[in-house]
Amino acid sequence: MSAAATTLPPLDLLSDVPTPALVVDMAKARANHRRAVASLGPGQRLRPHFKAHKCTALARMQLSEGADTICCQTTWEAVVLAGSGIRDIMVTNQVVDRAALDELAEAAKSAAVSALVDAPVQVAMLEETARRAGVRFGVLVEIDVGMKRCGVSVDSDALLELADAIAASDLLTFAGLQSYDGHNAGIADPARRKPAAMEALAKTRHAAERLRAHGVAVPMVAGCATAHLPFIGEMDAWTDIQAGSYLVMDQLYGAFPDLAYPPALFGLATVIHRSPERIVLDIGLKHIGVDNGHPAWVGETAAPLRFSDEHTTIAVAPESDIAVGDRTFLLPRHIDPTINLHPTLWLIDEDGVTPAPVDGRMGARGGA
Amino acid sequence: MSAAATTLPPLDLLSDVPTPALVVDMAKARANHRRAVASLGPGQRLRPHFKAHKCTALARMQLSEGADTICCQTTWEAVVLAGSGIRDIMVTNQVVDRAALDELAEAAKSAAVSALVDAPVQVAMLEETARRAGVRFGVLVEIDVGMKRCGVSVDSDALLELADAIAASDLLTFAGLQSYDGHNAGIADPARRKPAAMEALAKTRHAAERLRAHGVAVPMVAGCATAHLPFIGEMDAWTDIQAGSYLVMDQLYGAFPDLAYPPALFGLATVIHRSPERIVLDIGLKHIGVDNGHPAWVGETAAPLRFSDEHTTIAVAPESDIAVGDRTFLLPRHIDPTINLHPTLWLIDEDGVTPAPVDGRMGARGGA
Repeated sequence: MSAAATTLPPLDLLSDVPTPALVVDMAKARANHRRAVASLGPGQRLRPHFKAHKCTALARMQLSEGADTICCQTTWEAVVLAGSGIRDIMVTNQVVDRAALDELAEAAKSAAVSALVDAPVQVAMLEETARRAGVRFGVLVEIDVGMKRCGVSVDSDALLELADAIAASDLLTFAGLQSYDGHNAGIADPARRKPAAMEALAKTRHAAERLRAHGVAVPMVAGCATAHLPFIGEMDAWTDIQAGSYLVMDQLYGAFPDLAYPPALFGLATVIHRSPERIVLDIGLKHIGVDNGHPAWVGETAAPLRFSDEHTTIAVAPESDIAVGDRTFLLPRHIDPTINLHPTLWLIDEDGVTPAPVDGRMGARGGA
Repeated sequence: MSAAATTLPPLDLLSDVPTPALVVDMAKARANHRRAVASLGPGQRLRPHFKAHKCTALARMQLSEGADTICCQTTWEAVVLAGSGIRDIMVTNQVVDRAALDELAEAAKSAAVSALVDAPVQVAMLEETARRAGVRFGVLVEIDVGMKRCGVSVDSDALLELADAIAASDLLTFAGLQSYDGHNAGIADPARRKPAAMEALAKTRHAAERLRAHGVAVPMVAGCATAHLPFIGEMDAWTDIQAGSYLVMDQLYGAFPDLAYPPALFGLATVIHRSPERIVLDIGLKHIGVDNGHPAWVGETAAPLRFSDEHTTIAVAPESDIAVGDRTFLLPRHIDPTINLHPTLWLIDEDGVTPAPVDGRMGARGGA
């Protein structure tokens, strides 16, 4: 999906939105969500990943349209989700920091909350926190299926020992397995991505079978990403699909030929300078994440951008009539770190434009 | 200044700080500030750039120690600075968006506020805003001294015409010139950086002389960056030195051999995973800016980091005793986009550790 093929929101609807801003085309986001849900196989449910947008208004839309569970990456996100009335929250991370454990307990006071472990000390920390706060936690064991980040080996004794240690606690419930083959999610070519994902699937299935042979039920096997959606029905070892980017998409995933999810997130900027040969926008790397490359301009040229802290400089033709005060769009390359920079998403719907706080970002966590 | 040579804050002081976090060694920041002020030449004053840290607690320290004016990059920063009692604020940017113009007017109700122009339409916008809000603005003309971003040419008719248009308004005051040779600020080698800066200086002096020959007084000539501080006394065309990074520094500037300002900003993280061959930290590119490269680990190895949204993966030796729950530091490569990711800076002083809100970031601006 090239930038040129992207349908842009109508600028006249956005005249009251202060720039720089991020806007979401809700009709496209809803259509993307329905497409993702429709692609699931039997026994699978979507557990949308809140980390992608950290905005409870978008999470509520996802939960009202074919999803009833959610996952998130930080404990502050779990607190915000529980506060917004969501009742089944998985934190796809090990929780170790004392303040994070307290946040996990706070969320667990009003929601069923689960988290990951890959070491006995994390089980002990969760149990101690549950006892102190008077709550219970679900616990999943994370397995490493090739990403080499967190997780225990699928062939390790640790896998079985951790499940036993969780089951032995009266305050913890063994909720299943989690595996994330993030090393595959970045492969653009489906002919290479799918076989790699099938390998991760086989390792995940092997771990689940070892647990079952050990006499442990495995109610949930969580994993996958937006990159798995084109063949998610075949990923049958995974029950809970933690995709996030599919909702509003970005240029990174937009370049994957099999991912038919059009971008629904746009950076809105004002032209603050015009010279014969260039324009400068009031948006920069404090507003759009650059970890996977620069955003694309949807304007007149495909010239490379020069991106600085608070400015974007773009070469234009001398005869262009773009002027100081005009507004234009940039297409972010990676949505997660981009939305993380904004206090607000501006949601475009049939009723007009509504600001929605990005309330799950650390910026909303508060100081002390 | 290599990471290895950096003196780290004492971890035991920070046990109550939730991770991921940014901490500032205030003794080092104060020493850096005094060094910067001491390097100024006759007729020069430091106008510390608030955009670097966006934290009014740090700005108040800077203003109490040899600086009595400040500059900032966004109009929201100007609102926050005016609200904190600061009385002389320059916005080093063209202000075009309607909401931004309103914020500039809000700041001007309690402070002397100036902003940049490089086109007649911006003068008209400032005048219309001043009339509507019942305030006055100082206005500087930005000149392009080689960066090719904003600004008019030093030889242009536009330079004189803009000064005349500003002077003709009863609500605007011509405050002077601004030039920013940001293209020179990134040159690490002082033997190349200084001659390049001297060229920008000559262009700036030429523009000021043209205005004076035209009969216009030029009270202020603003510009420069931390990279100019080693020879700032020789940059005699500039009266207002808008350096920012010098205060807490980063690895980018720390590699410049003539910049003897030790880093005072540290990313604090918790180890959440340990395998024989690696650790994973609870800090990632949602907490540390990567536009100029990855942060450095101050731990046992110089192995490259693997940096993802919320994790840092670091190779360690199997015999290392670093364990889940330990805490460690990363050194950011570029401070501005890093601090912009955090709601709070944790200031370490002789009295202990105090949280200070990063109140000038867009995250604090609010939604609608």
